[in-house]
Amino acid sequence: MGDVDSIQGVEMYLDELTKDEFESQVGKGVVVILPFGAVEEHGAHLPLATDSIQPIHVAEEVARRTGALIAPQVRYGLCSSTRRFPGTLSLTFDTVRALATDILSELVRNGVRRVMVLSGHAGRTHMAALKLAAEAVVRDHPDLRVAVLSDYDIVYERAGELDGLVPPDDGHAGMIETSRVMAIRPDLVKGQGVESHPDFPPYRVLADPERYFPSGIMGDPTGSNPEIGERINRIIVDRLVELVNELKKG
Amino acid sequence: MGDVDSIQGVEMYLDELTKDEFESQVGKGVVVILPFGAVEEHGAHLPLATDSIQPIHVAEEVARRTGALIAPQVRYGLCSSTRRFPGTLSLTFDTVRALATDILSELVRNGVRRVMVLSGHAGRTHMAALKLAAEAVVRDHPDLRVAVLSDYDIVYERAGELDGLVPPDDGHAGMIETSRVMAIRPDLVKGQGVESHPDFPPYRVLADPERYFPSGIMGDPTGSNPEIGERINRIIVDRLVELVNELKKG
Amino acid sequence: MGDVDSIQGVEMYLDELTKDEFESQVGKGVVVILPFGAVEEHGAHLPLATDSIQPIHVAEEVARRTGALIAPQVRYGLCSSTRRFPGTLSLTFDTVRALATDILSELVRNGVRRVMVLSGHAGRTHMAALKLAAEAVVRDHPDLRVAVLSDYDIVYERAGELDGLVPPDDGHAGMIETSRVMAIRPDLVKGQGVESHPDFPPYRVLADPERYFPSGIMGDPTGSNPEIGERINRIIVDRLVELVNELKKG
Amino acid sequence: MGDVDSIQGVEMYLDELTKDEFESQVGKGVVVILPFGAVEEHGAHLPLATDSIQPIHVAEEVARRTGALIAPQVRYGLCSSTRRFPGTLSLTFDTVRALATDILSELVRNGVRRVMVLSGHAGRTHMAALKLAAEAVVRDHPDLRVAVLSDYDIVYERAGELDGLVPPDDGHAGMIETSRVMAIRPDLVKGQGVESHPDFPPYRVLADPERYFPSGIMGDPTGSNPEIGERINRIIVDRLVELVNELKKG
Amino acid sequence: MGDVDSIQGVEMYLDELTKDEFESQVGKGVVVILPFGAVEEHGAHLPLATDSIQPIHVAEEVARRTGALIAPQVRYGLCSSTRRFPGTLSLTFDTVRALATDILSELVRNGVRRVMVLSGHAGRTHMAALKLAAEAVVRDHPDLRVAVLSDYDIVYERAGELDGLVPPDDGHAGMIETSRVMAIRPDLVKGQGVESHPDFPPYRVLADPERYFPSGIMGDPTGSNPEIGERINRIIVDRLVELVNELKKG
Amino acid sequence: MGDVDSIQGVEMYLDELTKDEFESQVGKGVVVILPFGAVEEHGAHLPLATDSIQPIHVAEEVARRTGALIAPQVRYGLCSSTRRFPGTLSLTFDTVRALATDILSELVRNGVRRVMVLSGHAGRTHMAALKLAAEAVVRDHPDLRVAVLSDYDIVYERAGELDGLVPPDDGHAGMIETSRVMAIRPDLVKGQGVESHPDFPPYRVLADPERYFPSGIMGDPTGSNPEIGERINRIIVDRLVELVNELKKG
Repeated sequence: MGDVDSIQGVEMYLDELTKDEFESQVGKGVVVILPFGAVEEHGAHLPLATDSIQPIHVAEEVARRTGALIAPQVRYGLCSSTRRFPGTLSLTFDTVRALATDILSELVRNGVRRVMVLSGHAGRTHMAALKLAAEAVVRDHPDLRVAVLSDYDIVYERAGELDGLVPPDDGHAGMIETSRVMAIRPDLVKGQGVESHPDFPPYRVLADPERYFPSGIMGDPTGSNPEIGERINRIIVDRLVELVNELKKG
Repeated sequence: MGDVDSIQGVEMYLDELTKDEFESQVGKGVVVILPFGAVEEHGAHLPLATDSIQPIHVAEEVARRTGALIAPQVRYGLCSSTRRFPGTLSLTFDTVRALATDILSELVRNGVRRVMVLSGHAGRTHMAALKLAAEAVVRDHPDLRVAVLSDYDIVYERAGELDGLVPPDDGHAGMIETSRVMAIRPDLVKGQGVESHPDFPPYRVLADPERYFPSGIMGDPTGSNPEIGERINRIIVDRLVELVNELKKG
Repeated sequence: MGDVDSIQGVEMYLDELTKDEFESQVGKGVVVILPFGAVEEHGAHLPLATDSIQPIHVAEEVARRTGALIAPQVRYGLCSSTRRFPGTLSLTFDTVRALATDILSELVRNGVRRVMVLSGHAGRTHMAALKLAAEAVVRDHPDLRVAVLSDYDIVYERAGELDGLVPPDDGHAGMIETSRVMAIRPDLVKGQGVESHPDFPPYRVLADPERYFPSGIMGDPTGSNPEIGERINRIIVDRLVELVNELKKG
Repeated sequence: MGDVDSIQGVEMYLDELTKDEFESQVGKGVVVILPFGAVEEHGAHLPLATDSIQPIHVAEEVARRTGALIAPQVRYGLCSSTRRFPGTLSLTFDTVRALATDILSELVRNGVRRVMVLSGHAGRTHMAALKLAAEAVVRDHPDLRVAVLSDYDIVYERAGELDGLVPPDDGHAGMIETSRVMAIRPDLVKGQGVESHPDFPPYRVLADPERYFPSGIMGDPTGSNPEIGERINRIIVDRLVELVNELKKG
Repeated sequence: MGDVDSIQGVEMYLDELTKDEFESQVGKGVVVILPFGAVEEHGAHLPLATDSIQPIHVAEEVARRTGALIAPQVRYGLCSSTRRFPGTLSLTFDTVRALATDILSELVRNGVRRVMVLSGHAGRTHMAALKLAAEAVVRDHPDLRVAVLSDYDIVYERAGELDGLVPPDDGHAGMIETSRVMAIRPDLVKGQGVESHPDFPPYRVLADPERYFPSGIMGDPTGSNPEIGERINRIIVDRLVELVNELKKG
Repeated sequence: MGDVDSIQGVEMYLDELTKDEFESQVGKGVVVILPFGAVEEHGAHLPLATDSIQPIHVAEEVARRTGALIAPQVRYGLCSSTRRFPGTLSLTFDTVRALATDILSELVRNGVRRVMVLSGHAGRTHMAALKLAAEAVVRDHPDLRVAVLSDYDIVYERAGELDGLVPPDDGHAGMIETSRVMAIRPDLVKGQGVESHPDFPPYRVLADPERYFPSGIMGDPTGSNPEIGERINRIIVDRLVELVNELKKG
């Protein structure tokens, strides 16, 4: 929570508006960004809020550049492989889906027709919950234009631009996440992490995935630095701005 | 979101800790405060986040004085009588209950045994959802010490101390809420509101409760000022500190 | 069950009508009273049916005076703090809600548009289940006029008329309930109970609330008598008659 | 409700006991009869409570002869083919199942180990809901001895004893039901009904089954009389007494 | 699965069609047969697929004679009394109901208006799940003509034609099932089974029903032969053809 | 259904075993393959069963080579982007999850500890449903070794071996699927399909995805031939044999 700058004077946060200010924005066809995060271990060096901090940071910049409103972030998500580490507070699939369905439905009931669901947590079942929610609401309201993505989807999409900078098998709490948090909230980074390449048995659904990466890290965060983080954040923001503008067109 | 000061250096927000820092706090028997808010109309003068801003503000002070950790706030709630005003984004009962159940269960799974669920929104069915969640988790984990309350429960409990200051039928978006938000986030208060005393037909469950208070206000906020807000916030903080200390005893 | 007088000749019980008699009453805009009760311990001196006996007794008198029909009583409810005493048979929240939703929906499907849900059990989560059910049905059928209340809501509302008669902190199985059952079914009252003032830790959701009142009583029933019970019953009936008439107006 | 004689002095109704009286009965291994009924059209001549009146009547006699306790009757059930007639208030399958599951679970939690679920309504999906509930509770509590039946199961089982008295295709609101209600609550029988033999298309699940029997009757009630009703009631009671005694043996 | 002949050239299986071939059949008012089976013990002599093999076999012949399409068989069902034998894989009630509801709804969404749900497993709660599903879909789509039956319903209906051939109390894995499987898949019949007449306590819902028939057989399969099986299959096919033709008429 | 060869004499299909034969296999630590398919449009040239035909074909070969048992295939799945084409019969997410959970739980209850869930349909939410089911069962039974995959996961994993043979953006009903069905059931392939490269707007959840590929095809199937299909099938079988052997090791 404390990682959010107060940007007084700029109408960026949906819930800082009054009812009438909100209604007026809806009347103008505003895009709403609905950010999701997680409370999840990220090695010994990154905070539990790692997946919350990143999307809210880029969402703020996107909002500045596009006039989008940011709905209150849901700072809990569904975590599978890290669930049994200390500090992970995982919602169930049904709760994530219900939350996203409720919020999207209520935005639509209020007249909003353009929404970007932006998740800092990119777990596959977590993302499936968000997509199912969006599918259900879109089925009832075909005029809703909604995108559902993780900011890590952008990283994968733009992998070419990061070539040479980031190791190819970088993942959870690795160089990208570490560098990004270094750029956003350096005070929350404790040391530089350790290299770890979990060798999960293929396609298995495991009772104890943590056994394969006791450090809680997938990748090699040791070479991380805030400059790389800044650069990745900029790439993500630029792409999100494009996507918000695409939503506006319809 | 923007209403939260960044208090670097003080370990106050649960998700700003690393997994190991969190585990260490759990080992010491930490009390966790789980704040709930709402996105809900509060007249033409208060922000939709009114019910989120207040509990997080007092929770921070309580955390400072007791060493409690604040879990990420859930900034959505269940709103009945205000649901059809612009800007209200209401969760369903089942979603609120599921969220609270999941988070409490996960705290318990992590070893936490002392939790205060503190809601800024005080609607009866909203509070019932939180209580049912706590009842379910306590039934499975009888050693969990959990309190569930709204900061407005404290206001009612300590009404005597406010005599003469606050009108007796003050309610939603009235003098207390307006004064408190004036004390916390004056930049978000737009004007002084209007007096309104809805005359609901007794015991009725209505399809259109908003018809009885088109202003979205219950009470008379016109005499509000930040000093009253400060005083109420102090009363609430003092009482919450007592309650946190009571949780620690067990 | 055995506490109900057979009142042959008066069409008072909805399910004693034939389908055509019922249809005819619906055509005339009949008000239906839907009573809820509970199977719940009420100290060593009152029967488990205490919360069922009271509302059905007043409902009969209200029906006589207003022409309302009484739907079959649901003689089970949701009991929290007394759940672990012998004799409490508590439904879950979802069952109470589903039951009330089903019955209200079916009344509406049959053309009924005026319903009073009258519960003898006044637990907060129990009442929340009934209200949520009514909210859901009203949302789909905005022309339904429905009130949801406990007969104890009337007692609190009219507390002024009882001043001096009843101790201020009277509650579960206390003087009011004991006196009322004495007036209705004296054969079921076994002795006069004992005084007990549970000192629950504030706002806590407890695994073992019964530890705080081993007698199963909250208040002092020792001075109870049927005259007080009669008087309270009359106050409740008079107010319920007003409320039924208010429902008829719409 | 009004069809129940008050039998003061005999401990027959579970909820007329105090908590301690109930606990004492449980300690002696009491059998609990849990009766279900329905609010369902039964032609122009029988009351909506027909399926509630019959099982409670026989249950009282069984309780007298065996010492069993009668739990509060659930006077609502699931009605399929009669659902669209005036006066039918049908619960959903899930509600019937949840109700039966909750009550059985609570009886078991209280120490009861012998239960007879006795339904006056014999619809196939209604009975399936009761059986599923019992199966679920028995799976968790293998020492629970529970029987689930309709009093009409006994009629079919003992059809031989009724040969010549009752037409072979007698059914809903037919001679058996009419005669039984004539024996129990003659004041609620309005005329003698009409003969009707619905010719449902085989195995079809219909949107409008009522089209096939506009009278709401299946069979020929015109020759009904209270003597036949008495005789059937006696047959049922005798068999239920045997079944209760069989439950006691375990 | 391996019990199904490949009948290339005949359009019999719905899912062997392309989308356009299917659409064309729907346009002509095709009847769809939706077969259900089970994985359930059937004594030491019959395969677990016994309830899947029989309906698919008769469905193929019915499809040949009527032009009906066969939807993919659901080869799992809900098994109660045999659940604890090795090899029984029982779905829950809710899963069977959801499956049947989904498939029926999707057929209707595709324009299909005539469906026969044909189950080889005839357990009462299993059949209730299928009927509830059909009721729900028919309620939303009153123009859907749907029949729900077990092929064993036909056996009971036509019991007269089997007089003298089959013992009166023949049941699960008895002479009828054994003879039918002998006629269809003789390679899967291992020996002739044993006689067993379980003496279940009447109306009881049991934790351990298998205790009453350790062989897993109800009846006497020892005199089974494929000729009887053929004859029964023919009787069933003839009746199903009539029923499919009845569905076509509407 | 008709696409399955009858392989008499080889114990390959779980439900062709008797209860005792199954129990014996379980005692030896058998691996069970649980195949899922779908009823889903696959262009104008491939059958609706395309996703069912492929996994059952490779599963049979894997069973031959490893001694694994094949549980009855679930020939329905969850289809998102193709849902509104004729012939797609999509289950809901909850139904797929419930089915997989039930079957896995029942296998475990029977003593099975090694399962491969093999889906021919590879939709992301479909696969998420299967994984969630496996996660839930594994959480309760940590000794269960379970893999969840689509045969298309193998294709992606082994993309290198197909280089030059298959176009890089091949997908639904494209060259790989067409070639494989040509190799397995050539009689069901009607023509050669058309080239189609849908240009979905990125990250959007659409009400009408079919608008972007009216042919129902993603890729270019026009160069398909059975030799390529054979080769891909062999690659998949070889890898699945490895994975089954890996499951056996534990």
